Amino acid sequence: MSKSIFYHAGCPVCISAEHDIINLIGSENVEVVHFGEHKSRIEEAEKAGVKSVPALLTPTGNVLHINFGASMEDLKS
Amino acid sequence: MSKSIFYHAGCPVCISAEHDIINLIGSENVEVVHFGEHKSRIEEAEKAGVKSVPALLTPTGNVLHINFGASMEDLKS
Repeated sequence: MSKSIFYHAGCPVCISAEHDIINLIGSENVEVVHFGEHKSRIEEAEKAGVKSVPALLTPTGNVLHINFGASMEDLKS
Repeated sequence: MSKSIFYHAGCPVCISAEHDIINLIGSENVEVVHFGEHKSRIEEAEKAGVKSVPALLTPTGNVLHINFGASMEDLKS
């Protein structure tokens, strides 16, 4: 895995952070996953350690929770 | 301002996030400020909107609070 994955749920906090992250690390270095469009990927994200969105999973497997948009529990309800 | 500024306070969460951020955006693109060594810069960070550390101030002036190490209030006490 060489790309980071940015998980979000379309909230304003998420979109703002998405723009910042893409500006900082380049859109070619990050896959963007919107849970509203890809709900099936929630499980994968939780297994990686994502507890809230927006979050960035780094190529080394660390999760950076950036600001706070919504908890993963909220997304499943 | 073209560099980002990474503010932290030496806590384990901070150091881990610092490594991730430097790997992602490159050490040449980020100034690292350790409040334990530069307590005088707490005021500057608060004015920029930093509420907890670790945090990344982007070149566009947005603050990304990454995970949670300590609140700014804790650092002043």
